[in-house]
Amino acid sequence: METNRRDTFRKSRKIGKAPSVKIIPLGGLEQIGMNITAIEYDDTIVVIDCGLAFPEEDMLGIDLVIPDISYLKENADKVKGLVVTHGHEDHIGAIPYIEKELNIPIYATKLTVGLIDNKLREHNILNNVKRKVVKHGQIINLGCFRIEFIRSNHSIADSSGLAIYTPAGILVHTGDFKVDFTPIFGETIDLQRYAELGKKGVLALMADSTNAERPGFTPSEKTVGRTFDMLFAENKNSRLIIATFASNVDRVQQIINSADKYGRKVVVEGRSMVNIINTASELGYIQIPDNTLISIEQMKNYPDEQIVMITTGSQGENMAALSRIAANIHNKVSIKPGDTVIFSSSPIPGNEKAVYKVMNELEMKGAKVIFQNTHVSGHACQEELKLIYALTKPQYAIPVHGEYRHLKRHAELAVEMGVAKENVMIMSNGNVLELSTDEMKVVDNVTSQGILVDGLGVGDVGNIVLRDRQHLSQNGLIIVVVTLEKHSNMLVAGPDIVSRGFVYVRESENLIEECHDVVEDALSKCLDRNITDWGKIKTSIKDELGEFLWKRTKRNPMILPIITEV
Amino acid sequence: METNRRDTFRKSRKIGKAPSVKIIPLGGLEQIGMNITAIEYDDTIVVIDCGLAFPEEDMLGIDLVIPDISYLKENADKVKGLVVTHGHEDHIGAIPYIEKELNIPIYATKLTVGLIDNKLREHNILNNVKRKVVKHGQIINLGCFRIEFIRSNHSIADSSGLAIYTPAGILVHTGDFKVDFTPIFGETIDLQRYAELGKKGVLALMADSTNAERPGFTPSEKTVGRTFDMLFAENKNSRLIIATFASNVDRVQQIINSADKYGRKVVVEGRSMVNIINTASELGYIQIPDNTLISIEQMKNYPDEQIVMITTGSQGENMAALSRIAANIHNKVSIKPGDTVIFSSSPIPGNEKAVYKVMNELEMKGAKVIFQNTHVSGHACQEELKLIYALTKPQYAIPVHGEYRHLKRHAELAVEMGVAKENVMIMSNGNVLELSTDEMKVVDNVTSQGILVDGLGVGDVGNIVLRDRQHLSQNGLIIVVVTLEKHSNMLVAGPDIVSRGFVYVRESENLIEECHDVVEDALSKCLDRNITDWGKIKTSIKDELGEFLWKRTKRNPMILPIITEV
Repeated sequence: METNRRDTFRKSRKIGKAPSVKIIPLGGLEQIGMNITAIEYDDTIVVIDCGLAFPEEDMLGIDLVIPDISYLKENADKVKGLVVTHGHEDHIGAIPYIEKELNIPIYATKLTVGLIDNKLREHNILNNVKRKVVKHGQIINLGCFRIEFIRSNHSIADSSGLAIYTPAGILVHTGDFKVDFTPIFGETIDLQRYAELGKKGVLALMADSTNAERPGFTPSEKTVGRTFDMLFAENKNSRLIIATFASNVDRVQQIINSADKYGRKVVVEGRSMVNIINTASELGYIQIPDNTLISIEQMKNYPDEQIVMITTGSQGENMAALSRIAANIHNKVSIKPGDTVIFSSSPIPGNEKAVYKVMNELEMKGAKVIFQNTHVSGHACQEELKLIYALTKPQYAIPVHGEYRHLKRHAELAVEMGVAKENVMIMSNGNVLELSTDEMKVVDNVTSQGILVDGLGVGDVGNIVLRDRQHLSQNGLIIVVVTLEKHSNMLVAGPDIVSRGFVYVRESENLIEECHDVVEDALSKCLDRNITDWGKIKTSIKDELGEFLWKRTKRNPMILPIITEV
Repeated sequence: METNRRDTFRKSRKIGKAPSVKIIPLGGLEQIGMNITAIEYDDTIVVIDCGLAFPEEDMLGIDLVIPDISYLKENADKVKGLVVTHGHEDHIGAIPYIEKELNIPIYATKLTVGLIDNKLREHNILNNVKRKVVKHGQIINLGCFRIEFIRSNHSIADSSGLAIYTPAGILVHTGDFKVDFTPIFGETIDLQRYAELGKKGVLALMADSTNAERPGFTPSEKTVGRTFDMLFAENKNSRLIIATFASNVDRVQQIINSADKYGRKVVVEGRSMVNIINTASELGYIQIPDNTLISIEQMKNYPDEQIVMITTGSQGENMAALSRIAANIHNKVSIKPGDTVIFSSSPIPGNEKAVYKVMNELEMKGAKVIFQNTHVSGHACQEELKLIYALTKPQYAIPVHGEYRHLKRHAELAVEMGVAKENVMIMSNGNVLELSTDEMKVVDNVTSQGILVDGLGVGDVGNIVLRDRQHLSQNGLIIVVVTLEKHSNMLVAGPDIVSRGFVYVRESENLIEECHDVVEDALSKCLDRNITDWGKIKTSIKDELGEFLWKRTKRNPMILPIITEV
């Protein structure tokens, strides 16, 4: 492989043009989640991350959104592997789907592989997929690339940045990161290595844009531990319930540390919380003192002030443990006056109302809710981003991971840090960016729209189905069934009118009666005009009934005429 | 009336019990919006405010929510009038609906009446309703109550607090308020009057809880003006577009002031913005220098740096002017690189994603978006609330206007300010609270659930209809039409299967084919078992098809079997 790479390098040199590498984000820009980027050179494609996105509000009934990997399927023979920066859903969630289609080897650190394994197991494909655990500092060879995993900090342990050595130069990808000088597990992000890479020469830096709008430095994870200690001390007579992100293993560790210090037993509740803590604990990423964990059934054997429950539901998710507890539909836990509930999280945009609803419900049942100073972000703010630019001094800056406004703020910051304005590129999903030491430009576009997953169906719900769901959700529907006699087209039975989601029929009998008249009128007009084409008859029913209902109700239900013939 | 009141007072005194007054919130607690409270004594009911609420996320297709005034209708002869504290939608939006049913006189300050008039005009009932303009400091008599309007500060001019003199004692209602020592229009809230009332003795204080979770003091509206001046100076080569709440007349005034200072013409865009500025300008609440306003058509006659547009859409509302501009579907304005767009607002919970979407779209088109330090709240923070408590020293504290968590924080604050714990009451909508100097207790409950308005229909969409819309929105529907022969119940035509919002049919032909088989099976099983009852046949189709589809797709569409007979 090494030889191969040099050959290609020399070949390009021969014709006097600097070799160029392609960067193709198939997701992760513009929308939140669904991070996946292909890096391509010659016969080699390496995929970085493969996450899912949660549906937007207008994607009614959709469970999740996964990337469209048509481009990778078309170039399947080139795809050498999937390297994964960390174990969050928006970076690993779509791996089972990609593996079912491409079956490529996966490279990631130990905890990340552990979490990926859980997903593959759920999809019953664990044994079909090759996974390789990589250590920070280690370099792997994939086709004509060498890829180095760099120690990083984030809101999940064992996260990595990447240095991708390509014939065109070194690409640095930070993954999701922050700079934490006092991390809970492991060490500070490997700033020295970023500096060394900078000294060698970095062709392009792809860095996390999430917090590019925020000035300053994200506080260390350790600051939350101090808050926990204080809250444990202040609420020593209450049962404590703490909701946080299941994947934030360091946060959970700190809760366990405080529990240990203040003599409380720990109960873990919520499926994903249990799964991740089990995996993290098996792999050594979380230290639980003996006799600290108790089962939810054992809770009743301890007084409230000796209990802390760690639970899912910090985003107000409908079916998560805390939401069920708040709504009084959890079968094992109910809120008592005097309970203290801590939200160790901040609402992800879009979840605010759901979170406040849960908080209100908890308070109504007598709990005290605490949410201030109980969370820090896992993403770099402006000063941390500047630090990475100062260390790596890239020729090109390609902001990744954020909505457009984040990417743009990041782009401005890159210019402030000395990257030439024309060397900063805000990409869109599907762009094929070709870059060499000579130039950088978008040379092509590939399919990159997310694919909707609904139940077992992958991609069978598209725009037409969503538009219908939207229409039905706002206005309901009216079905008009008429049975016509063959040839004569005379009305034999009906019209039967069935409505759902339109009006409460019992209180609107007159309206439905009038609908009958309108439909019969429409039908007899068709007969009069010798219209026999069913399509035209249906259109006529639809139009006349639609107009009547709009006039009468200012509503616009879906109207479905159905004609049967006997 | 005055005599009446004294008589009643004496009557109660005679039997040795302190007279008691009733407070009945019919909305405004627990949810945001829909503020309406009845105050009742003997043969007198006075209604404070009558607002609407915007639909919750699960109220699919609903346009707005108005209060249930059954209790007022049952006691229509007692209802002496509607006093309105200020002109926001959540305090005046349902007035046309209440007036159509009760036709009671309205009392409010000049701007508030002006805005109410606009609403009555839209509903064609302006001439049927008696409105009386009241000045701050003025006292009106309504039945056995005297009601004083007290000057206040809020994010709309001419807002009022109320002192309600009842036989049981003085009730103070702050309305929505803040303490602004440097307001734009008018003067600082009448703190002296609150102090005098406190000296006289206040039975109960009903105060605004919106910001009860926030420490400190809400900054003055004037601070935003300073930011505007700075932004006008910093962006003097850009066209400026500023989005804010249409009703925030003082904010608009400050934009106009900056425009005047920096030599820009002002364009007003968005229906509600135009309406409110017209009303405020006619009534003297906004001063627009001559030759400042230009029409949107005149914009092209001025260079960009001489234009500032004031627009609706600061909450990312779908059809508001700014959203249409951002989405490139506004017929008169489109974004150019170099434009500066200022959001002078903060997202109301639930609107965050919509606001960020508009921001992203604007930035993608090359605009610079500014949203920091461009807004202050119109509601009192903790120190302002404490000030009102220190001045009024009420016997009872009844937190109003907020979600439960806000009411609770406010209740704690009242206790800190010296109100006895048992004298603080967190009410629920519909509670009938009876209070006298002796005691305070909830003595009854009346109907208070919001009524849903969908198009022209008021209250004809209830839980069943919403549940159907919910079901349809998540899973779509399948209609199964079968035509049976009379008596024999043999299948004459069909089954015809029509689906909407379920799967993209062209790509799922096999699935629909299989559905046919399942239905035919179900039908023949019924025939075999001599089941002739249509209800049972339908249930059988529904069950078998439902089970089949769940197994095959893990989805759960609404299944509507329709049987016709010939």
